[in-house]
Amino acid sequence: MNFNSVTEDHLRDLRSMVEPDRFSTGESNLELHSKDESQHLPVRPEVVMWPTDKREVSEILKYANQHMLPVTGWGAGTSLEGNPIPVRGGIVLDFSRMNRIVQVREQDFQADVEPGVVYRDLNKNLRHKGLFFPPDPGASATIGGMIANNASGIRTVRYGSTRANVLRLTVVRANGEIVKIGCRASKTSSGYDLKNIFVGSEGTLGIVVEATVRLRGLPEEFLTAMATFPSVKAAGNAVFEIMRSGLDPASMELLAPECIEIINKEKALGLQVAPTIFMEFHGPSKNQLTETIQMAHDISDDMGCHDFRPGIGIKERNEFVSARYDLAEMLKRNHPGRSHMVIDVAVPISAYPEMIAFASEESQKAGIPGYTFSHAGDGNLHQVFMGKIGDKKEWVLIDQINERIVSKALAMDGTATGEHGVGIGKRKFMQAEHGDSLVLMKNIKNMLDPNGILNPDKMF
Amino acid sequence: MNFNSVTEDHLRDLRSMVEPDRFSTGESNLELHSKDESQHLPVRPEVVMWPTDKREVSEILKYANQHMLPVTGWGAGTSLEGNPIPVRGGIVLDFSRMNRIVQVREQDFQADVEPGVVYRDLNKNLRHKGLFFPPDPGASATIGGMIANNASGIRTVRYGSTRANVLRLTVVRANGEIVKIGCRASKTSSGYDLKNIFVGSEGTLGIVVEATVRLRGLPEEFLTAMATFPSVKAAGNAVFEIMRSGLDPASMELLAPECIEIINKEKALGLQVAPTIFMEFHGPSKNQLTETIQMAHDISDDMGCHDFRPGIGIKERNEFVSARYDLAEMLKRNHPGRSHMVIDVAVPISAYPEMIAFASEESQKAGIPGYTFSHAGDGNLHQVFMGKIGDKKEWVLIDQINERIVSKALAMDGTATGEHGVGIGKRKFMQAEHGDSLVLMKNIKNMLDPNGILNPDKMF
Repeated sequence: MNFNSVTEDHLRDLRSMVEPDRFSTGESNLELHSKDESQHLPVRPEVVMWPTDKREVSEILKYANQHMLPVTGWGAGTSLEGNPIPVRGGIVLDFSRMNRIVQVREQDFQADVEPGVVYRDLNKNLRHKGLFFPPDPGASATIGGMIANNASGIRTVRYGSTRANVLRLTVVRANGEIVKIGCRASKTSSGYDLKNIFVGSEGTLGIVVEATVRLRGLPEEFLTAMATFPSVKAAGNAVFEIMRSGLDPASMELLAPECIEIINKEKALGLQVAPTIFMEFHGPSKNQLTETIQMAHDISDDMGCHDFRPGIGIKERNEFVSARYDLAEMLKRNHPGRSHMVIDVAVPISAYPEMIAFASEESQKAGIPGYTFSHAGDGNLHQVFMGKIGDKKEWVLIDQINERIVSKALAMDGTATGEHGVGIGKRKFMQAEHGDSLVLMKNIKNMLDPNGILNPDKMF
Repeated sequence: MNFNSVTEDHLRDLRSMVEPDRFSTGESNLELHSKDESQHLPVRPEVVMWPTDKREVSEILKYANQHMLPVTGWGAGTSLEGNPIPVRGGIVLDFSRMNRIVQVREQDFQADVEPGVVYRDLNKNLRHKGLFFPPDPGASATIGGMIANNASGIRTVRYGSTRANVLRLTVVRANGEIVKIGCRASKTSSGYDLKNIFVGSEGTLGIVVEATVRLRGLPEEFLTAMATFPSVKAAGNAVFEIMRSGLDPASMELLAPECIEIINKEKALGLQVAPTIFMEFHGPSKNQLTETIQMAHDISDDMGCHDFRPGIGIKERNEFVSARYDLAEMLKRNHPGRSHMVIDVAVPISAYPEMIAFASEESQKAGIPGYTFSHAGDGNLHQVFMGKIGDKKEWVLIDQINERIVSKALAMDGTATGEHGVGIGKRKFMQAEHGDSLVLMKNIKNMLDPNGILNPDKMF
């Protein structure tokens, strides 16, 4: 696509669409919106705007579409594949001021929210109502960003990804048209499923300006356990057997020994340095969960577990979960002069032990610090590499490992990205993953955004 | 669209594509494929073919597309909105001989199946492996039909609709192209969600020739209970509170007194004639479920339940479930000279007591025998009317009630069809339900099936 550069005339027109403090061409704002948390090269937009209402979004998009200016939505900038980097310049729409919780429909387990709401703030707001929005990607993501990426995380194994927890969307199309999609019934067989085309489309098909999300009752009780195993393979087998048992874990995380080492160092949790499963169960009573944990214990023992620590307290649990979330930051602290790249693939659960062994081996062979951890219950593997900043050779090597890990996942009927999205980083694998159906995806893009102004050069 | 009638030349060409016993223009076969289980007028196809393999389907579709002949897929003919009636004639593809369970991937909780597999046969096959395919629409549906309709049923409240239990599809497009869609990882953020456009599209966008479905571990234990309430409203409130409690029921069905009366008459279960909730819980141990049932009992009591029968045995449970499934047949037996029409809407759970009261009132006012029952945990209401066969006036009245019930559901942010699909019967509500997004649906139809040969005159 041939886009136009943003001219003074464009700026004048765009400036008239929002209040003065919600429009910026200042260096620091352009810089702030030039990169996410990935290794992909920063590219500055030409102007940043902060809409507060869907009509503003509509007006801006209509104008941009007429004038062939690229438009990229911006949530919190926490994505990991370059998803919101405005690689063709143009306009960034930052949704941080469009962050109202419009309505909590307690009696329906639903909330209507704007895209700029940070999911942690939503859950803080919901806590006293005994409800929560389950997808939990860890990072301080916005709901808009989570929808764009179909984000998921440690609770997906029980509660599903963002897709499963969104019922209705209001979307502004590339031409400025405002469209409502979906309904508030918890199930429907009416018409084509447009909602799920927009969820996970990374802002390339339309801009979500409101969402009705599905909430769950906060579990009355939860219990956690940590289990250590002699090998990653044994741990993988335990994951499979626990999944099969119907114990319905709310989290099922696997950390390789090198991750435990770092967590011990930073948090002094005194964990045994070995492949470790962190599991959490939600339920209506302590009694039930105690029995559940006992069953998980028995299964783990059968799989060779040599240490099972059940019933860790809320404090220890929260420390562990935050350690799990802060792993990337910890790794940076422990590897000065190095930066991280997170590899994200998912495979069918039976392929998961082999996948995890393959990733570990690759990092050992390369001699680059590598850390394996995963949402094991979903077969979703992350491998973090700590590459020397500025060492081009090392980053080329990491990129090659990424390719091998993704190819391995695809060969096992898996996916190039379990939860981080395509963005820039996974574009090159789309043909291999989707084959002929990639053409259908491109047709959908052309149908919904014929000028290609929405987050251009992503996805394909 | 202007379709061609099937000529002798066409028949000669089509006949060459399959073995002789898998091709028919015989009266009885045309008649058998002219109607489903709805009240919609039968229309005969011009030819019925029984493909056994995706290449045959591809060849037939390519030919039909070139010659402008309508093609309608056929599962078991059990749908309730006229979905598979070949209203423009042409070719019916009956998938009953394409019914292989290609592979059960026990270790992945997955099975690859052909569209003609009857889901009960699949579950029979899976039982000894300790697995099952959870969507359970009641009727003897095929997997292909379930995918076409995004079917759901009494277990959807816990396990999701068909959509949530399909991972990967092989689809033959209108032009004959064979496309694989989706992957076998349990989650993905890769590309646009094409899979869910095809699920629920009622064979109007492509023909599914293979599916990888998600299986679950058969619950170690299950317990059921029946609770009777002084009013439908009280029962509705109990449903809401049980859903909120996190007890995670596997079924939550509500039957109005008139349904209980019929079941008592036919099955001699001796149930109290009152609004009744049938609930089922799945879990890993009897202990846990006993406690769960006790909690459900306490909640029910708080809501005014006057009889709670926990722990009914497997025999009684199966009898009740089969009674629930056979209700339509029972109603026909109990109303000689009358035939049924099933109204299907879904609303947000808080609107459900009002919805159910509205539907009951409508049937009382009309003086036509009406029966209210529902997948209450999903806010999915069914109202069965028994209309006099041949009494046009009465059927016009039933149609008007249908319109009022659907309009009421839409006014409460619900959907015109919770699980029966659009077919013929719900087309007239699509504009009201989907508004501007209906145009996007039509664009998708035109993009994927430009000649409109796939199940024409449905959905829109």
